[in-house]
Amino acid sequence: MTTASHPTDSTNRGDAQICRGCWDQMRVPIPIRGALALPFRMFGVTRSKMNPNICTICERSFRYVKKQRHVTASATILFADIRGFTALSEQIEPVRLSEIVSLFQDRCAQAIWAHDGIVNKQMGDGLMAIFNFPIVRQDHAAAAVMAAMDIQRHCRSAFEHLEADHGLGVGVGIHSGEVEIGEFSSFRSDFTAIGGAVNLAARLESQARAGEIVMSPETTTQAAHLTSEAQSRSLVLKGIEQPVEARVLTTA
Amino acid sequence: MTTASHPTDSTNRGDAQICRGCWDQMRVPIPIRGALALPFRMFGVTRSKMNPNICTICERSFRYVKKQRHVTASATILFADIRGFTALSEQIEPVRLSEIVSLFQDRCAQAIWAHDGIVNKQMGDGLMAIFNFPIVRQDHAAAAVMAAMDIQRHCRSAFEHLEADHGLGVGVGIHSGEVEIGEFSSFRSDFTAIGGAVNLAARLESQARAGEIVMSPETTTQAAHLTSEAQSRSLVLKGIEQPVEARVLTTA
Repeated sequence: MTTASHPTDSTNRGDAQICRGCWDQMRVPIPIRGALALPFRMFGVTRSKMNPNICTICERSFRYVKKQRHVTASATILFADIRGFTALSEQIEPVRLSEIVSLFQDRCAQAIWAHDGIVNKQMGDGLMAIFNFPIVRQDHAAAAVMAAMDIQRHCRSAFEHLEADHGLGVGVGIHSGEVEIGEFSSFRSDFTAIGGAVNLAARLESQARAGEIVMSPETTTQAAHLTSEAQSRSLVLKGIEQPVEARVLTTA
Repeated sequence: MTTASHPTDSTNRGDAQICRGCWDQMRVPIPIRGALALPFRMFGVTRSKMNPNICTICERSFRYVKKQRHVTASATILFADIRGFTALSEQIEPVRLSEIVSLFQDRCAQAIWAHDGIVNKQMGDGLMAIFNFPIVRQDHAAAAVMAAMDIQRHCRSAFEHLEADHGLGVGVGIHSGEVEIGEFSSFRSDFTAIGGAVNLAARLESQARAGEIVMSPETTTQAAHLTSEAQSRSLVLKGIEQPVEARVLTTA
């Protein structure tokens, strides 16, 4: 258990020896790589699809990990999707469309994992990521902003290499705040986050143009060193009473 | 194997003896209930979370089931979500919010399963369902419309029994057409549907007010016996060039 008891040795490059989620949440070392992981694998404990540095205990046994059905936690929520995808989906053949979706989902996941986030939901040309659960990052707002920058850079590079130039771009929205994390469906066991902060992140993303990262004031403040070049934009968002003074990073 | 070889004996009430997806797609009987299911369970083949009448082979081994990464298929796509949830999420405490989300997700799933659909995606206060894959239903448009009616009825009844009356309602959008079904992410193994038809269903749902079921002309035509009372509404939808002559069923 020598390696397993040194979780700080693990990096964020997808090669942690023990589950970083179980360690951060419970201080329990669950081997996910190497020989020690084999007996766990026999009992169905493998690496999670949400992040290869966490295990399926984190993913599917929220009640076991947190001893409650859901908890209130401070987190940063990131939404991303492909701009103009609906229009494009009416024009090009399905096989090309699926190629674009795969490129997008894979590039985004790599960027999110590199900054300790998890890909909590994938929905066609969009996704939702959570930072600070189950892998704890005090600087979760900054981690999400860095992931967003990587998403923009890597997706642009991937889209440029496509056979045809569809002028595709990605929009990202980020908000940091209190969310409710847990299981909210009696028949699904994977956890998710809900609450006003999640909805605000989704609304910010809906306002992001191709190449833009739209951030709430909370995220901007917490990640000040990364967002000094961001421009202000006052946004009126559906379902949200007050206009939001968002900050926008434009990557190009 | 006597019961297993009679898949038509299975009902849609969540008590099929063999996986209806594997049977419909491959004519292979995979036991999912009773003693015959035990050896399969030992190898991780259990009932799917998407629908209790299909198994995890259907859910996670699309390439094995269809011998391709994705296929074009005729299907009906249903989106549903809670109207006014973003505004509500700013007003009430998280524990109440999670209660509402759970009620919604569970009532919707029961309605979708009762008509042989699968709950393919759950996203907070919303979901996406597919009809005609992997369980084959020639009348998939009608099945989706009936599920939508059940969703409206059951959610209304559930919301009425909540402690506080938040005036909550559900909006549903349905479209029938050709979609691309398969795996579109190299790290997730569960299948989904993408394409113009999926996006159109999502856009229709975004236009549905509380209590409404908004259907495309294609769905309305295929489910004519259920939609004769539906009212016409011309909708201009984001990313879709031509206005859509939708039909709207209002339940109340």
